[in-house]
Amino acid sequence: MIDNLVRRTRTVRRFEEDKPIRQELLNQLIDLARLGGSARNAQSLKYLVITEREVRERFFPLLAWAGYLPHWPGPEAGERPSAYVVCLLDSTLQKGPETEAHFDLGIASQNLLLGAAVEGVFGCRIGAFSADKVQRLLNVPERYKAILVIALGYPAEKVVLEEVGEDGDIRYWHDEQGVHHVPKRKLADLLLGPSDFAEN
Amino acid sequence: MIDNLVRRTRTVRRFEEDKPIRQELLNQLIDLARLGGSARNAQSLKYLVITEREVRERFFPLLAWAGYLPHWPGPEAGERPSAYVVCLLDSTLQKGPETEAHFDLGIASQNLLLGAAVEGVFGCRIGAFSADKVQRLLNVPERYKAILVIALGYPAEKVVLEEVGEDGDIRYWHDEQGVHHVPKRKLADLLLGPSDFAEN
Repeated sequence: MIDNLVRRTRTVRRFEEDKPIRQELLNQLIDLARLGGSARNAQSLKYLVITEREVRERFFPLLAWAGYLPHWPGPEAGERPSAYVVCLLDSTLQKGPETEAHFDLGIASQNLLLGAAVEGVFGCRIGAFSADKVQRLLNVPERYKAILVIALGYPAEKVVLEEVGEDGDIRYWHDEQGVHHVPKRKLADLLLGPSDFAEN
Repeated sequence: MIDNLVRRTRTVRRFEEDKPIRQELLNQLIDLARLGGSARNAQSLKYLVITEREVRERFFPLLAWAGYLPHWPGPEAGERPSAYVVCLLDSTLQKGPETEAHFDLGIASQNLLLGAAVEGVFGCRIGAFSADKVQRLLNVPERYKAILVIALGYPAEKVVLEEVGEDGDIRYWHDEQGVHHVPKRKLADLLLGPSDFAEN
């Protein structure tokens, strides 16, 4: 069960822009993020939800999409996200190094995206943006630092997993039908065993 | 469904030490970790599994348990983990800053622990150890850096979630029956809205 869900929970970058996500569902998804574990139990992450069209239109240009697809500028009008969750580190609640906030955010965002996939909603984690510009647009006080944006929507593209080839290239790519391919390393290549150990 | 699973997937620190986790299940759990998203799709994490009793006994003293319970030195003999997954950053595969590896590891470890909970296995993420000592004990080459240990086993303690109180204290605690209590902030306290925004 969880195996199928984990496989299905893929990054999606093109959406049915005009199909809104219910506010109640968005709150439920953030509640899943909330329920994840947290280093030192600090729970220093906060969330800001963007759904209004006018704000989405001003927000979209601040984001960089799909670094491995330099000729693809991101989703066109009509296939952009119908919601964004801006994830912010609250410096007044931070207890350890910032790596811990990123670790917490991996946990939280995975809960959120797994829960979303159950409801047919998919998303894209975006780390490539100027926190300053995002925070200025949204009037976010300085005690917060935007460290991730999760773009969400009902999907309008197909994503498939495939094995990394002999050349070791891990860059995702679009085929002629616009299908998004994601190369994944094999399990055997991730498991360290005696043959990987130092001989001393 | 996912809501219940996410709620159940709590950090556990006392286990039925003599109840082994099947190797096949451990591999399936690491496969779930593998299937998580990865920043730049770098997939720079590798995994080393420890199940042999003799290695576990030498490994256990390298770990620090439960920072908020200074009078509790960690699980006693008989209630220690029956397996460990050591998570290592492979520097030869790293593409971005180390924060991205921690982010990936949040995602990967959450997949692993959600899948484990479905099978009645629970765990504890431990970041407090000397990577040098861990790697020396396990003969791990220098290209890798141990950044997390996931202790796993069948649970021998009860964990409950509760709301953070008025005083804002987020430290988990043990009650007289040995039940582990984890204070969680309320959803309303994590959602930023107009009242949190700067007035300018």
